[in-house]
Amino acid sequence: MSGRILPARLARLRRTALRRADALVLTHLPNLLYLVGFRGSSGVLVLTRSHCVFFTHGIYRTQARQEVVGAQIKIVEGDPLPGASRWLARKRPRRVAYEADHLSAAGFHQLAHILGANVELQATELCVDQLRAVKDADEIARIRASVELTARVFEEILPLVRPGVRELDLAAEIEYRMKQHGACSQSFETIVASGARSALPHGRASRKRLRENELVMFDLGAILADYCSDMTRTVFLGKPPAKVLRIYRAVQDALAAAREVVRAGVEASRVDAAARRVLAKRSLGRYFVHGTGHGVGLEIHEEPRLGRDSPARLKAGNVITLEPGVYLPGVGGVRIEDVVVVRKTGAETLTPLGTELICL
Amino acid sequence: MSGRILPARLARLRRTALRRADALVLTHLPNLLYLVGFRGSSGVLVLTRSHCVFFTHGIYRTQARQEVVGAQIKIVEGDPLPGASRWLARKRPRRVAYEADHLSAAGFHQLAHILGANVELQATELCVDQLRAVKDADEIARIRASVELTARVFEEILPLVRPGVRELDLAAEIEYRMKQHGACSQSFETIVASGARSALPHGRASRKRLRENELVMFDLGAILADYCSDMTRTVFLGKPPAKVLRIYRAVQDALAAAREVVRAGVEASRVDAAARRVLAKRSLGRYFVHGTGHGVGLEIHEEPRLGRDSPARLKAGNVITLEPGVYLPGVGGVRIEDVVVVRKTGAETLTPLGTELICL
Repeated sequence: MSGRILPARLARLRRTALRRADALVLTHLPNLLYLVGFRGSSGVLVLTRSHCVFFTHGIYRTQARQEVVGAQIKIVEGDPLPGASRWLARKRPRRVAYEADHLSAAGFHQLAHILGANVELQATELCVDQLRAVKDADEIARIRASVELTARVFEEILPLVRPGVRELDLAAEIEYRMKQHGACSQSFETIVASGARSALPHGRASRKRLRENELVMFDLGAILADYCSDMTRTVFLGKPPAKVLRIYRAVQDALAAAREVVRAGVEASRVDAAARRVLAKRSLGRYFVHGTGHGVGLEIHEEPRLGRDSPARLKAGNVITLEPGVYLPGVGGVRIEDVVVVRKTGAETLTPLGTELICL
Repeated sequence: MSGRILPARLARLRRTALRRADALVLTHLPNLLYLVGFRGSSGVLVLTRSHCVFFTHGIYRTQARQEVVGAQIKIVEGDPLPGASRWLARKRPRRVAYEADHLSAAGFHQLAHILGANVELQATELCVDQLRAVKDADEIARIRASVELTARVFEEILPLVRPGVRELDLAAEIEYRMKQHGACSQSFETIVASGARSALPHGRASRKRLRENELVMFDLGAILADYCSDMTRTVFLGKPPAKVLRIYRAVQDALAAAREVVRAGVEASRVDAAARRVLAKRSLGRYFVHGTGHGVGLEIHEEPRLGRDSPARLKAGNVITLEPGVYLPGVGGVRIEDVVVVRKTGAETLTPLGTELICL
């Protein structure tokens, strides 16, 4: 990320988060990457009106110097939270905000103890996560590249998808090719779930071998230039029976219906309801056991969430998945998932593949 | 894991954790795998003297039925914590213990709110993690198999390690072969760090190409049958200069010194001190910027920790890494890491490779 973008993000955060608090203690690593560029696994960022200090362990001394932009770096022994808390206590803040969803209860008690009883602790709910939910053009370009890489890998491995192959071998091949094409890693453990296993929404690849006349669900994503992709396609090995075609068509229509509703200003729950309605009409509603989508960015699951009770309203620049699914326990499942950008007038699909059933 | 081991673990936990509390609320996923066998990504286990109930989201209905042993399964809408808390509130407990290190502050506040002001919440520090730190024979056999797989992959890729190859391509090859040999995934993002990048203790593989006369650090681990491995070897491309040999020898001796001290009953900090002393004597102490090791098991980093201030005392059945390192910023680094089992009389090394410097 360029050196100008990060300080602008910090400035935006300062304007909102320090309105009612004297300091903000940030502990969620993807948020630290977003704000100051740090990619390591241990760090705390403390933001006050006059300071921005990044605390990390000595193991990251060199890496922090190379990566961190817009914050002073302090190296502490061991866990950085107590060191950050002690530094902040000396500034005598009255109100300190912290990331309630991203700090452990033990960390919270430690922070409270070091700051003392006179400091009011304010739980912020996803304050940086909400900023991150709206992507700029550079971020959208990165997610698009990550999505395109994933689609390319999926097309490359299709010739390998045949009876006798193990799910795990296909997952290994997918993850290998992602890296060959420049991804630093997969964005989650690749799902390859065949036959009855495709009815497990999170059916991680197993030793099971593919068989003829089975559904095979692929859910894959890469991390490219820090940004995640997420894509699901379900294929059939052989000539699909009418029941499979009926379910597949229902999921395909649910995805189209959800996409139809997406645009800036719409409640996330309405998008979910649109997909759910299509499946309910075909008596498949009770087999759709998860939300319709989620934000994608530096993390594979981020704001906004698109579920039945999601309070969010979509904003232009949100990048979200749409991924309805139907899972018949013991039989099999179908899920189709695209990534789309929320625009003022509708959804722009980033996934460069059609949703038609692929039969192999 | 067999159907008898899990209930025995639950029984052991009940005996200790429910001595001073009426209920225990468990939220750390590896602990749920350890206790009831669940491998999904959303669940809460509530243990009382008379009940053991596992709460999860509808997305895991089928998977939970297949995996969970020794607990009643309840499916809840959305996040399982509020549902679990409400169920527990109806049992009218007076003292409820929770995993302070593995529950978010937001989750803690939610639990406290639902249980009400009359319930005393007790922070447990790593109570299940402490049980997990002592491995049984089956667990040690699994870790051994995982370590052996990792060593085999390292030996297989050595012929590919030559000038011109990108770090990322080697990492991709390593992770691919792990899966070919039966691993379900890597236990962390594979580190391949060459030249000056080897001075980054966590130098994740980059696009950098290997060059002649460089150090190359490999830190790799697999997950096989749920158990992690962890291994570091540092190689040299060419004929190493005296300075590299001196540093390498110091790290090798530090590892041997640490191993010499390991046995049941010894303080973890003494093992760390033994490695540190060797490096300090050779004026390299300030370049050893992390602890000497950590437990390995269902997680890649678990109890006990072996650092300067670690309070733990080693127990027979602990499985730990020993991984001293020296990192010269801008120049390069050396780390050597083995996995050993703590026995009554000493350390049993699981890593089936010597620690001599490999020159390619």
